[in-house]
Amino acid sequence: MALVVHERVGLDGRRISPFSWRLRYALAHKGLTPEFVPTRFADVERIRALSGQHYTPIIVDDGQVVFDTWHIACHLEDRYPALPSLFGGAMGRGLTRWTNVWSDTVLAPAMRRLISADFIWCIAPEDRAYFRSSREKMFGCSLEEYCADRPHWLAQLHLVTAPLRATLDEQPFLCGAAPGYADYLVFSVFQWARIGSPRDVLTEPSSLQDWREKLVALHGGLGDAHGHYPAQRTGPDGH
Amino acid sequence: MALVVHERVGLDGRRISPFSWRLRYALAHKGLTPEFVPTRFADVERIRALSGQHYTPIIVDDGQVVFDTWHIACHLEDRYPALPSLFGGAMGRGLTRWTNVWSDTVLAPAMRRLISADFIWCIAPEDRAYFRSSREKMFGCSLEEYCADRPHWLAQLHLVTAPLRATLDEQPFLCGAAPGYADYLVFSVFQWARIGSPRDVLTEPSSLQDWREKLVALHGGLGDAHGHYPAQRTGPDGH
Repeated sequence: MALVVHERVGLDGRRISPFSWRLRYALAHKGLTPEFVPTRFADVERIRALSGQHYTPIIVDDGQVVFDTWHIACHLEDRYPALPSLFGGAMGRGLTRWTNVWSDTVLAPAMRRLISADFIWCIAPEDRAYFRSSREKMFGCSLEEYCADRPHWLAQLHLVTAPLRATLDEQPFLCGAAPGYADYLVFSVFQWARIGSPRDVLTEPSSLQDWREKLVALHGGLGDAHGHYPAQRTGPDGH
Repeated sequence: MALVVHERVGLDGRRISPFSWRLRYALAHKGLTPEFVPTRFADVERIRALSGQHYTPIIVDDGQVVFDTWHIACHLEDRYPALPSLFGGAMGRGLTRWTNVWSDTVLAPAMRRLISADFIWCIAPEDRAYFRSSREKMFGCSLEEYCADRPHWLAQLHLVTAPLRATLDEQPFLCGAAPGYADYLVFSVFQWARIGSPRDVLTEPSSLQDWREKLVALHGGLGDAHGHYPAQRTGPDGH
């Protein structure tokens, strides 16, 4: 088997992409150990030449190129059915997709308001101008304006994550007694924040905070396997 | 097997409880045909005597009393494992619970803003004073004030249901290719609205509207098996 993952990296080898993190957890869940090829914003043409589009991560599995992290997860599940399941069957896959959509369209936008202004500092210096201009065009304001009212956005995140807390008050993982891809994809948004900002977005002890720490510790402490803000404190003003 | 369901009914035998609807779909999914015992608000002491609490539905399965609709669904799944599965396995059950929490805490409150003022008219006349006083105490205002700004609450529901639409744009059911309990419990909130108000809460054609109609038609047209507003138009002003 030759399995290669091309994934985005930032400053000092930081793994900055939530999509990459959910894929790393999925690979660890299945016990797969691919070769990881780091990709920078400047490598966009290499990714395009490989996959016909420019988003990462992509995988090359015995010559087959797969992109879009959801499709990659489905590919891994279908190609390695004897390895531990990411979805736990057809209904689990359908409900994981629903959870993925919720996470991408409700949770991640709420998170983005809290981390975008800090996030630029964990990107390699030569990629920062691109990051700033592309995001500021998307947001219609500066990164700093986008994140200015932190108490408001913390309250919004608290509201949006209420059903996660209520679920995790009852059961250890979103997938029940043991974690699955739905846990990994939701966790990846919190991991994105851990790596992208020195300021914790979960300010109160809760079942959600406990769950996040359990996910960090999974698969041999995978969540701490690469540098992140709290450990390195390399932000602009000595964070 | 003696399986009995005690469920809330309203005016002219209407089935007015979303919890009752998700249970009815779950029973149909498993091919179970219990005896249904109608319950009115005035029957609260009978329910309490049976189950030690006053919420409906409750079931009595060969003498075992089970209450709380989620626990009833789990009971049916565990007691009748050879019948079609409601969850599709352990991960599916975990993810269904997360969907249940989301539905009860995010979707249902948004729906309540649109239907509470109409809903009183599909309750039996002798139960309306109780319904009004208990709800108005909970809401801190009159039913009519609670639902006054309909365009605003329609926009809120549209926002809250965006991830449902995005998921159903991609796959036929929340559970994937075929429906499961997660579909039934989310559908039950829309069914509550169909029965509780003459005004459709889904004002634009969408994958969500299509999915709702597919759910209405399932199990022999179960969603139309009891009277509801659009068919009967028995509201206060000739709806």
